Amino acid sequence: MTDKRSAKAAGRTEAIMRTTLELGQEIGYAKLSIEAVAARAGVGKHTIYRRWPSKGALFLDSLLSLNRPGLDYPDTGDVVADLREQIHMAIDLLDRPPLGPLYRALIGEALLNPQVAAALNDHFITPQAEMTVARLKAARDQGQLSPDFDLDLAMGILSGPLYFRALIIQEPLTHEYVDRVIEALFAGMGPRR
Amino acid sequence: MTDKRSAKAAGRTEAIMRTTLELGQEIGYAKLSIEAVAARAGVGKHTIYRRWPSKGALFLDSLLSLNRPGLDYPDTGDVVADLREQIHMAIDLLDRPPLGPLYRALIGEALLNPQVAAALNDHFITPQAEMTVARLKAARDQGQLSPDFDLDLAMGILSGPLYFRALIIQEPLTHEYVDRVIEALFAGMGPRR
Repeated sequence: MTDKRSAKAAGRTEAIMRTTLELGQEIGYAKLSIEAVAARAGVGKHTIYRRWPSKGALFLDSLLSLNRPGLDYPDTGDVVADLREQIHMAIDLLDRPPLGPLYRALIGEALLNPQVAAALNDHFITPQAEMTVARLKAARDQGQLSPDFDLDLAMGILSGPLYFRALIIQEPLTHEYVDRVIEALFAGMGPRR
Repeated sequence: MTDKRSAKAAGRTEAIMRTTLELGQEIGYAKLSIEAVAARAGVGKHTIYRRWPSKGALFLDSLLSLNRPGLDYPDTGDVVADLREQIHMAIDLLDRPPLGPLYRALIGEALLNPQVAAALNDHFITPQAEMTVARLKAARDQGQLSPDFDLDLAMGILSGPLYFRALIIQEPLTHEYVDRVIEALFAGMGPRR
Protein backbone atom coordinates (compact mmCIF):
# COMPACT_ATOMS: atom_id res chain seq x y z
CA MET A 1 0.00 0.00 0.00
CA THR A 2 1.35 3.45 -0.84
CA ASP A 3 1.77 5.97 1.96
CA LYS A 4 -1.07 8.04 0.57
CA ARG A 5 -3.51 5.12 0.50
CA SER A 6 -2.34 4.03 3.91
CA ALA A 7 -2.93 7.51 5.36
CA LYS A 8 -6.38 7.59 3.80
CA ALA A 9 -7.27 4.22 5.32
CA ALA A 10 -6.02 5.35 8.72
CA GLY A 11 -8.12 8.51 8.46
CA ARG A 12 -11.20 6.47 7.61
CA THR A 13 -10.56 4.08 10.52
CA GLU A 14 -10.28 7.03 12.85
CA ALA A 15 -13.49 8.58 11.51
CA ILE A 16 -15.39 5.31 12.01
CA MET A 17 -14.22 4.98 15.62
CA ARG A 18 -14.98 8.64 16.39
CA THR A 19 -18.45 8.25 14.90
CA THR A 20 -19.03 5.10 16.97
CA LEU A 21 -18.31 6.99 20.19
CA GLU A 22 -20.38 10.03 19.19
CA LEU A 23 -23.36 7.93 18.23
CA GLY A 24 -22.93 5.71 21.31
CA GLN A 25 -23.08 8.75 23.54
CA GLU A 26 -26.15 10.07 21.73
CA ILE A 27 -28.31 6.95 21.58
CA GLY A 28 -26.66 4.52 23.99
CA TYR A 29 -24.86 1.30 23.25
CA ALA A 30 -27.99 -0.87 23.10
CA LYS A 31 -29.37 1.06 20.11
CA LEU A 32 -26.03 1.45 18.35
CA SER A 33 -25.65 -0.53 15.11
CA ILE A 34 -22.89 -0.96 12.56
CA GLU A 35 -25.37 0.19 9.89
CA ALA A 36 -26.01 3.48 11.72
CA VAL A 37 -22.28 4.09 12.23
CA ALA A 38 -21.63 3.40 8.53
CA ALA A 39 -24.37 5.80 7.46
CA ARG A 40 -23.14 8.65 9.63
CA ALA A 41 -19.45 8.07 8.85
CA GLY A 42 -20.27 7.95 5.13
CA VAL A 43 -18.74 4.51 4.50
CA GLY A 44 -20.23 1.23 3.38
CA LYS A 45 -21.10 -1.20 6.16
CA HIS A 46 -18.82 -3.82 4.61
CA THR A 47 -15.91 -1.44 5.13
CA ILE A 48 -16.65 -1.71 8.84
CA TYR A 49 -17.36 -5.45 8.87
CA ARG A 50 -14.07 -6.15 7.05
CA ARG A 51 -12.20 -4.83 10.05
CA TRP A 52 -14.61 -5.45 12.95
CA PRO A 53 -16.67 -8.66 13.03
CA SER A 54 -19.21 -7.32 15.51
CA LYS A 55 -20.59 -4.18 17.10
CA GLY A 56 -18.82 -5.16 20.30
CA ALA A 57 -15.42 -5.39 18.60
CA LEU A 58 -15.90 -1.99 16.93
CA PHE A 59 -17.03 -0.42 20.18
CA LEU A 60 -14.09 -1.82 22.16
CA ASP A 61 -11.53 -0.51 19.66
CA SER A 62 -13.26 2.86 19.59
CA LEU A 63 -13.10 3.21 23.37
CA LEU A 64 -9.49 2.02 23.48
CA SER A 65 -8.55 4.49 20.72
CA LEU A 66 -9.18 7.35 23.15
CA ASN A 67 -5.99 6.25 24.87
CA ARG A 68 -6.52 8.77 27.62
CA PRO A 69 -3.51 9.69 29.64
CA GLY A 70 -3.83 9.79 33.41
CA LEU A 71 -4.43 6.19 34.40
CA ASP A 72 -0.76 5.57 35.15
CA TYR A 73 0.29 5.45 38.78
CA PRO A 74 2.28 8.26 40.28
CA ASP A 75 5.12 7.15 42.55
CA THR A 76 5.65 9.82 45.18
CA GLY A 77 6.97 7.24 47.65
CA ASP A 78 3.66 7.22 49.56
CA VAL A 79 1.73 4.20 48.31
CA VAL A 80 -1.54 5.14 50.00
CA ALA A 81 -1.55 8.66 48.53
CA ASP A 82 -0.62 7.28 45.10
CA LEU A 83 -3.34 4.65 45.10
CA ARG A 84 -5.87 7.25 46.16
CA GLU A 85 -4.86 9.67 43.41
CA GLN A 86 -4.83 7.09 40.61
CA ILE A 87 -8.13 5.48 41.63
CA HIS A 88 -9.85 8.86 41.98
CA MET A 89 -8.75 9.66 38.41
CA ALA A 90 -9.89 6.26 37.16
CA ILE A 91 -13.41 6.58 38.57
CA ASP A 92 -13.71 10.18 37.37
CA LEU A 93 -13.01 8.89 33.87
CA LEU A 94 -14.78 5.52 33.84
CA ASP A 95 -17.76 6.07 36.14
CA ARG A 96 -18.93 9.49 34.87
CA PRO A 97 -20.41 10.69 31.60
CA PRO A 98 -19.47 10.74 28.82
CA LEU A 99 -17.47 7.51 29.15
CA GLY A 100 -19.16 5.90 32.17
CA PRO A 101 -22.31 4.56 30.50
CA LEU A 102 -20.27 3.35 27.52
CA TYR A 103 -17.74 1.55 29.73
CA ARG A 104 -20.55 -0.19 31.63
CA ALA A 105 -22.11 -1.27 28.31
CA LEU A 106 -18.74 -2.58 27.16
CA ILE A 107 -18.45 -4.78 30.25
CA GLY A 108 -21.98 -6.01 29.56
CA GLU A 109 -21.06 -6.83 25.97
CA ALA A 110 -17.92 -8.64 27.17
CA LEU A 111 -20.04 -10.84 29.44
CA LEU A 112 -22.12 -11.90 26.44
CA ASN A 113 -19.35 -12.10 23.82
CA PRO A 114 -16.15 -14.05 24.58
CA GLN A 115 -14.18 -12.37 21.77
CA VAL A 116 -14.92 -8.93 23.20
CA ALA A 117 -14.07 -10.22 26.68
CA ALA A 118 -10.69 -11.54 25.54
CA ALA A 119 -9.80 -8.31 23.73
CA LEU A 120 -10.97 -6.12 26.62
CA ASN A 121 -8.87 -8.17 29.03
CA ASP A 122 -5.78 -8.14 26.85
CA HIS A 123 -5.91 -4.44 26.00
CA PHE A 124 -7.34 -2.82 29.11
CA ILE A 125 -8.20 -4.89 32.20
CA THR A 126 -4.95 -6.86 32.46
CA PRO A 127 -2.62 -3.88 31.81
CA GLN A 128 -4.55 -1.81 34.38
CA ALA A 129 -4.39 -4.61 36.96
CA GLU A 130 -0.68 -5.05 36.29
CA MET A 131 -0.08 -1.35 36.96
CA THR A 132 -1.81 -1.64 40.33
CA VAL A 133 0.20 -4.74 41.18
CA ALA A 134 3.44 -3.03 40.08
CA ARG A 135 2.78 0.01 42.28
CA LEU A 136 2.03 -2.23 45.27
CA LYS A 137 5.13 -4.32 44.54
CA ALA A 138 7.31 -1.19 44.52
CA ALA A 139 5.92 -0.30 47.96
CA ARG A 140 6.61 -3.83 49.17
CA ASP A 141 10.15 -3.73 47.79
CA GLN A 142 10.69 -0.42 49.59
CA GLY A 143 9.54 -1.96 52.88
CA GLN A 144 6.28 -0.02 53.13
CA LEU A 145 4.33 -3.27 53.00
CA SER A 146 5.18 -6.55 54.65
CA PRO A 147 7.29 -9.05 52.68
CA ASP A 148 4.36 -11.50 52.42
CA PHE A 149 1.88 -8.84 51.26
CA ASP A 150 -0.42 -10.56 48.71
CA LEU A 151 -0.30 -8.29 45.67
CA ASP A 152 -3.05 -9.98 43.64
CA LEU A 153 -5.43 -10.18 46.56
CA ALA A 154 -4.86 -6.49 47.33
CA MET A 155 -5.54 -5.60 43.69
CA GLY A 156 -8.85 -7.50 43.89
CA ILE A 157 -9.82 -5.82 47.15
CA LEU A 158 -9.03 -2.39 45.70
CA SER A 159 -10.82 -2.90 42.38
CA GLY A 160 -13.60 -5.31 43.30
CA PRO A 161 -15.76 -3.14 45.56
CA LEU A 162 -15.68 -0.34 42.98
CA TYR A 163 -16.78 -2.55 40.10
CA PHE A 164 -19.36 -4.22 42.39
CA ARG A 165 -20.87 -0.88 43.37
CA ALA A 166 -20.81 0.58 39.85
CA LEU A 167 -21.94 -2.49 37.90
CA ILE A 168 -23.94 -4.68 40.27
CA ILE A 169 -25.45 -2.39 42.91
CA GLN A 170 -25.44 0.41 40.28
CA GLU A 171 -24.72 3.30 42.59
CA PRO A 172 -22.33 6.13 41.68
CA LEU A 173 -18.77 5.90 42.95
CA THR A 174 -17.37 8.67 45.13
CA HIS A 175 -13.83 9.61 46.14
CA GLU A 176 -14.94 9.09 49.74
CA TYR A 177 -15.93 5.48 49.02
CA VAL A 178 -12.55 4.86 47.35
CA ASP A 179 -10.80 6.25 50.42
CA ARG A 180 -12.77 3.96 52.73
CA VAL A 181 -11.87 0.90 50.63
CA ILE A 182 -8.17 1.83 50.70
CA GLU A 183 -8.30 2.42 54.45
CA ALA A 184 -10.00 -0.94 55.03
CA LEU A 185 -7.50 -2.74 52.79
CA PHE A 186 -4.56 -1.68 54.89
CA ALA A 187 -6.07 -1.36 58.36
CA GLY A 188 -8.64 -4.16 58.23
CA MET A 189 -12.04 -3.88 59.81
CA GLY A 190 -11.35 -5.95 62.92
CA PRO A 191 -11.43 -6.72 65.79
CA ARG A 192 -11.90 -10.32 64.85
CA ARG A 193 -12.68 -12.78 67.57
CA MET B 1 -60.33 -17.20 35.87
CA THR B 2 -61.43 -20.62 37.11
CA ASP B 3 -59.05 -22.67 39.20
CA LYS B 4 -58.63 -25.09 36.32
CA ARG B 5 -57.69 -22.38 33.81
CA SER B 6 -55.45 -20.74 36.39
CA ALA B 7 -53.65 -24.02 37.05
CA LYS B 8 -53.21 -24.56 33.32
CA ALA B 9 -51.72 -21.07 32.88
CA ALA B 10 -49.34 -21.64 35.81
CA GLY B 11 -48.26 -24.95 34.29
CA ARG B 12 -47.57 -23.24 30.96
CA THR B 13 -45.60 -20.46 32.64
CA GLU B 14 -43.52 -23.04 34.45
CA ALA B 15 -42.90 -24.99 31.23
CA ILE B 16 -41.75 -21.83 29.43
CA MET B 17 -39.28 -20.94 32.19
CA ARG B 18 -37.95 -24.50 32.41
CA THR B 19 -37.50 -24.57 28.63
CA THR B 20 -35.67 -21.22 28.77
CA LEU B 21 -33.13 -22.61 31.23
CA GLU B 22 -32.71 -25.90 29.37
CA LEU B 23 -32.17 -24.17 26.06
CA GLY B 24 -29.92 -21.53 27.66
CA GLN B 25 -27.70 -24.28 29.05
CA GLU B 26 -27.58 -26.05 25.69
CA ILE B 27 -26.86 -23.13 23.35
CA GLY B 28 -25.81 -20.28 25.67
CA TYR B 29 -27.60 -17.06 26.42
CA ALA B 30 -26.30 -15.18 23.38
CA LYS B 31 -28.01 -17.57 20.95
CA LEU B 32 -31.19 -17.95 22.98
CA SER B 33 -34.30 -16.39 21.43
CA ILE B 34 -37.94 -16.09 22.45
CA GLU B 35 -38.87 -17.76 19.16
CA ALA B 36 -36.71 -20.80 19.94
CA VAL B 37 -38.14 -21.09 23.47
CA ALA B 38 -41.70 -20.84 22.09
CA ALA B 39 -41.02 -23.55 19.52
CA ARG B 40 -39.59 -26.00 22.03
CA ALA B 41 -42.18 -25.27 24.72
CA GLY B 42 -44.96 -25.69 22.16
CA VAL B 43 -46.54 -22.28 22.70
CA GLY B 44 -46.98 -19.28 20.42
CA LYS B 45 -44.34 -16.58 20.77
CA HIS B 46 -47.04 -14.03 21.60
CA THR B 47 -47.90 -16.10 24.67
CA ILE B 48 -44.37 -15.40 25.85
CA TYR B 49 -44.26 -11.73 24.78
CA ARG B 50 -47.55 -11.06 26.60
CA ARG B 51 -45.83 -11.82 29.88
CA TRP B 52 -42.17 -11.00 29.18
CA PRO B 53 -41.30 -7.97 27.05
CA SER B 54 -37.76 -9.15 26.27
CA LYS B 55 -35.46 -12.15 26.29
CA GLY B 56 -33.70 -10.61 29.29
CA ALA B 57 -36.91 -10.37 31.32
CA LEU B 58 -37.84 -13.99 30.52
CA PHE B 59 -34.35 -15.19 31.37
CA LEU B 60 -34.27 -13.34 34.70
CA ASP B 61 -37.62 -14.77 35.81
CA SER B 62 -36.54 -18.24 34.73
CA LEU B 63 -33.36 -18.07 36.79
CA LEU B 64 -35.18 -16.62 39.80
CA SER B 65 -37.85 -19.34 39.54
CA LEU B 66 -35.23 -21.88 40.57
CA ASN B 67 -35.45 -20.36 44.03
CA ARG B 68 -32.64 -22.54 45.25
CA PRO B 69 -32.36 -22.96 48.97
CA GLY B 70 -28.99 -22.59 50.59
CA LEU B 71 -28.11 -18.93 50.12
CA ASP B 72 -29.39 -17.94 53.57
CA TYR B 73 -26.80 -17.28 56.24
CA PRO B 74 -26.32 -19.72 59.06
CA ASP B 75 -25.92 -18.13 62.50
CA THR B 76 -23.74 -20.36 64.60
CA GLY B 77 -22.48 -17.40 66.63
CA ASP B 78 -19.16 -17.37 64.74
CA VAL B 79 -19.48 -14.70 62.07
CA VAL B 80 -16.28 -15.65 60.24
CA ALA B 81 -17.27 -19.31 59.95
CA ASP B 82 -20.80 -18.35 58.87
CA LEU B 83 -19.60 -15.93 56.18
CA ARG B 84 -17.21 -18.55 54.89
CA GLU B 85 -19.91 -21.22 54.70
CA GLN B 86 -22.50 -19.04 52.99
CA ILE B 87 -20.09 -17.56 50.46
CA HIS B 88 -18.65 -20.98 49.60
CA MET B 89 -22.21 -22.15 48.87
CA ALA B 90 -22.95 -19.04 46.83
CA ILE B 91 -19.93 -19.43 44.55
CA ASP B 92 -20.53 -23.18 44.17
CA LEU B 93 -23.98 -22.30 42.86
CA LEU B 94 -23.36 -19.10 40.88
CA ASP B 95 -19.82 -19.58 39.55
CA ARG B 96 -20.05 -23.20 38.36
CA PRO B 97 -22.01 -24.93 35.60
CA PRO B 98 -24.89 -25.27 35.06
CA LEU B 99 -25.85 -21.88 36.49
CA GLY B 100 -22.53 -20.02 36.35
CA PRO B 101 -22.45 -19.15 32.64
CA LEU B 102 -26.13 -18.19 32.74
CA TYR B 103 -25.66 -15.94 35.78
CA ARG B 104 -22.74 -14.16 34.09
CA ALA B 105 -24.86 -13.65 30.97
CA LEU B 106 -27.68 -12.26 33.11
CA ILE B 107 -25.35 -9.66 34.62
CA GLY B 108 -24.22 -8.77 31.09
CA GLU B 109 -27.83 -8.38 29.96
CA ALA B 110 -28.54 -6.20 33.02
CA LEU B 111 -25.68 -3.88 32.05
CA LEU B 112 -27.28 -3.38 28.64
CA ASN B 113 -30.95 -3.32 29.67
CA PRO B 114 -32.06 -1.06 32.54
CA GLN B 115 -35.36 -2.95 33.04
CA VAL B 116 -33.49 -6.21 33.57
CA ALA B 117 -31.04 -4.42 35.88
CA ALA B 118 -33.85 -3.02 38.04
CA ALA B 119 -35.60 -6.38 38.32
CA LEU B 120 -32.35 -8.24 39.04
CA ASN B 121 -31.52 -5.77 41.77
CA ASP B 122 -34.97 -5.85 43.34
CA HIS B 123 -35.34 -9.62 43.27
CA PHE B 124 -31.82 -10.92 43.83
CA ILE B 125 -28.90 -8.53 44.36
CA THR B 126 -30.47 -6.32 47.02
CA PRO B 127 -32.00 -9.17 49.07
CA GLN B 128 -28.66 -11.01 48.97
CA ALA B 129 -26.73 -7.89 50.03
CA GLU B 130 -29.24 -7.29 52.84
CA MET B 131 -28.69 -10.81 54.14
CA THR B 132 -24.94 -10.22 54.30
CA VAL B 133 -25.45 -6.89 56.05
CA ALA B 134 -27.94 -8.48 58.50
CA ARG B 135 -25.48 -11.26 59.41
CA LEU B 136 -22.70 -8.71 59.99
CA LYS B 137 -25.06 -6.51 62.01
CA ALA B 138 -25.97 -9.44 64.27
CA ALA B 139 -22.26 -9.97 64.91
CA ARG B 140 -21.81 -6.27 65.65
CA ASP B 141 -24.79 -6.30 68.02
CA GLN B 142 -23.27 -9.30 69.80
CA GLY B 143 -19.99 -7.44 70.27
CA GLN B 144 -17.97 -9.56 67.83
CA LEU B 145 -17.33 -6.50 65.66
CA SER B 146 -16.57 -2.98 66.79
CA PRO B 147 -19.54 -0.60 67.29
CA ASP B 148 -18.44 1.56 64.35
CA PHE B 149 -17.98 -1.40 61.97
CA ASP B 150 -19.13 -0.21 58.52
CA LEU B 151 -21.64 -2.83 57.39
CA ASP B 152 -22.10 -1.62 53.81
CA LEU B 153 -18.39 -1.23 53.20
CA ALA B 154 -17.75 -4.73 54.55
CA MET B 155 -20.46 -6.13 52.27
CA GLY B 156 -18.74 -4.47 49.29
CA ILE B 157 -15.32 -5.79 50.30
CA LEU B 158 -16.71 -9.32 50.71
CA SER B 159 -18.69 -9.37 47.44
CA GLY B 160 -16.66 -7.07 45.21
CA PRO B 161 -13.46 -9.07 44.76
CA LEU B 162 -15.51 -12.17 43.91
CA TYR B 163 -17.58 -10.44 41.23
CA PHE B 164 -14.43 -8.70 39.95
CA ARG B 165 -12.58 -11.97 39.58
CA ALA B 166 -15.52 -13.87 38.07
CA LEU B 167 -16.84 -11.17 35.72
CA ILE B 168 -13.94 -8.85 34.91
CA ILE B 169 -10.75 -10.89 35.23
CA GLN B 170 -12.80 -13.99 34.31
CA GLU B 171 -10.97 -16.50 36.45
CA PRO B 172 -12.76 -19.23 38.40
CA LEU B 173 -13.48 -18.59 42.06
CA THR B 174 -12.14 -20.94 44.71
CA HIS B 175 -12.99 -21.48 48.35
CA GLU B 176 -9.40 -20.57 49.13
CA TYR B 177 -9.76 -17.17 47.45
CA VAL B 178 -12.96 -16.52 49.44
CA ASP B 179 -11.12 -17.38 52.65
CA ARG B 180 -8.31 -14.95 51.82
CA VAL B 181 -10.79 -12.14 51.15
CA ILE B 182 -12.55 -12.76 54.47
CA GLU B 183 -9.23 -12.89 56.31
CA ALA B 184 -8.11 -9.61 54.71
CA LEU B 185 -11.42 -7.94 55.49
CA PHE B 186 -11.04 -8.49 59.20
CA ALA B 187 -7.28 -8.48 59.66
CA GLY B 188 -6.27 -5.92 57.05
CA MET B 189 -3.19 -6.24 54.95
CA GLY B 190 -1.03 -3.74 56.82
CA PRO B 191 1.41 -2.57 58.07
CA ARG B 192 0.55 0.82 56.75
CA ARG B 193 3.09 3.58 57.07
